Amino acid sequence: MAVIVHHLLHPPHCSSPLPAFSSSSRPLKSQISCSSSSSVQMDPHNNEGRTKFKAFPYVSAPHRNLMVDLVSTVENRLDSQLLPCTLPPDVQYYQNQSGTGSATLHIRSGHKPSQIDFILGSWIHCELPTGGALNITSLSAYLNPSTDAPNFLFELIQSSPTSLILILDLPPRKDLVLSPDYLRTFYEDTQLDKHRQTLEKIPEVRPYVSSSLYIRSLVSPTAITVRIETEASGQGRMEEVIKGHIDPIAKEVLEIWLDECACGEREVGETERGYLEKRDGLVKSRTIEIDLGSSLPRLFGPEVAERVLGSVREFFTA
Amino acid sequence: MAVIVHHLLHPPHCSSPLPAFSSSSRPLKSQISCSSSSSVQMDPHNNEGRTKFKAFPYVSAPHRNLMVDLVSTVENRLDSQLLPCTLPPDVQYYQNQSGTGSATLHIRSGHKPSQIDFILGSWIHCELPTGGALNITSLSAYLNPSTDAPNFLFELIQSSPTSLILILDLPPRKDLVLSPDYLRTFYEDTQLDKHRQTLEKIPEVRPYVSSSLYIRSLVSPTAITVRIETEASGQGRMEEVIKGHIDPIAKEVLEIWLDECACGEREVGETERGYLEKRDGLVKSRTIEIDLGSSLPRLFGPEVAERVLGSVREFFTA
Repeated sequence: MAVIVHHLLHPPHCSSPLPAFSSSSRPLKSQISCSSSSSVQMDPHNNEGRTKFKAFPYVSAPHRNLMVDLVSTVENRLDSQLLPCTLPPDVQYYQNQSGTGSATLHIRSGHKPSQIDFILGSWIHCELPTGGALNITSLSAYLNPSTDAPNFLFELIQSSPTSLILILDLPPRKDLVLSPDYLRTFYEDTQLDKHRQTLEKIPEVRPYVSSSLYIRSLVSPTAITVRIETEASGQGRMEEVIKGHIDPIAKEVLEIWLDECACGEREVGETERGYLEKRDGLVKSRTIEIDLGSSLPRLFGPEVAERVLGSVREFFTA
Repeated sequence: MAVIVHHLLHPPHCSSPLPAFSSSSRPLKSQISCSSSSSVQMDPHNNEGRTKFKAFPYVSAPHRNLMVDLVSTVENRLDSQLLPCTLPPDVQYYQNQSGTGSATLHIRSGHKPSQIDFILGSWIHCELPTGGALNITSLSAYLNPSTDAPNFLFELIQSSPTSLILILDLPPRKDLVLSPDYLRTFYEDTQLDKHRQTLEKIPEVRPYVSSSLYIRSLVSPTAITVRIETEASGQGRMEEVIKGHIDPIAKEVLEIWLDECACGEREVGETERGYLEKRDGLVKSRTIEIDLGSSLPRLFGPEVAERVLGSVREFFTA
């Protein structure tokens, strides 16, 4: 869900849209995967899209390494539960007409009886009319109504070498005010807030408030939504912040999500399931509407936008 | 709801609890009151408590004037819908044993068919062991399940002449993710966020994040939760900020609440009403538990705390 991106970039040339995920190369089974049901063979035709996605070009080495590590971690752990990416090649990788923008998109659905709805990753690169470039990389994961556990959301939006927005959260799937046990289980007992507090202490870190009230409502009370400005800190500082702070925190939050959410077992009754189906459906359709629907046409032109949106809608409105 | 206060003050001597509201002197009918049903005569025995409450001692003139104006505005508009304050005199005004802390509490319930559940105001003064004093003033309002419109919350927590926390919000009474129309009606169309943005631009203003995840979940996406630090800005700057910025914003937000929430008409079906009863009940009982239950005994000793809490519980668990 790069849903937030649309609101970041007021010069409207390069707001953005899509996160993505790789159906990448087979992982080393160095980590035990959770409740694997069957192993799905990768479609070899996806290799080109997958390779392009996993390249994470245009960003710094620490940024690229972090994305590759996160994608690999998810694949190591959940691969046996995920179907291959079935997006058409021209949706897995697409460009705008002028050649100033390119992007990848990878979506892998979970297959029954996995709790994964789908996992989605992307990178987007777009030259800015003011010089420089916008680079967005993201990884997000949606669970299905067989569990009520939170989703996963990670996004880095870099509009210059010294300016970065970080979104990292486990967005809740229930009204937290009505669900104190849920708040305790996923947000208090996991001590998620300590990561937000750690980042807050870095001098270059400022709060980032999305202009969308809907997005503000969607995220959890421990959401990390910050802007990092390193212009005054000298060359290389952004890389230091990514490597020394964002990298370990993102990995730790992903581990929490994998352990407690993707692989945790939750009891969901019939009424609850109906509620989750309704809420999840609203979240996904609203995500498309706010994010992709408005930003993709501006970035990539109406034709490419319609092609990509058409493919994405299959997952977001299923 | 001074619910947030408990989490503000890590030196645990003077965290705090109660907001309050005056059953004050009869207002000039300079403003048209909404759907008044009958005019309730004030109980003359409340005069002393009311007078003490409306004095707002210990705070600066701009701070006091703002509180008095807010209380008067609510009374002018809603008075005919409110029952007199029926709290015992030793709950309307109470002190700790050492005489270093004193507080007022005023609660007025709405009478049928008003949409008001109750309105609650308070001030608290507590000398700090480190020198100086903690002063908290607050005004909050809870609606009943005949409407689903947001509540009102305003609180100023001053722990030194140069340090102030401001909480100003219309806390929603529904899950905003599931209720896009509600989000639009009360938060987008009212342009509530512009006030948050205005305050954010003042150099002395910093974000304030409650340590309670529950409180973070409770407030709206346009909530103003900020800390104002004026130590570096010279004498009198805090008064300038209160008079020039907080005063007009608090009044404008209160007007929105009065027009759109307290006096607005909403259709609430039977199922919806049951939902609101459950959610409101949880919010109120949790508020008591997090806020008053833990801070009052430390501030005022177990005996006074039990007396005050006993009276407050009647409203918060009704």
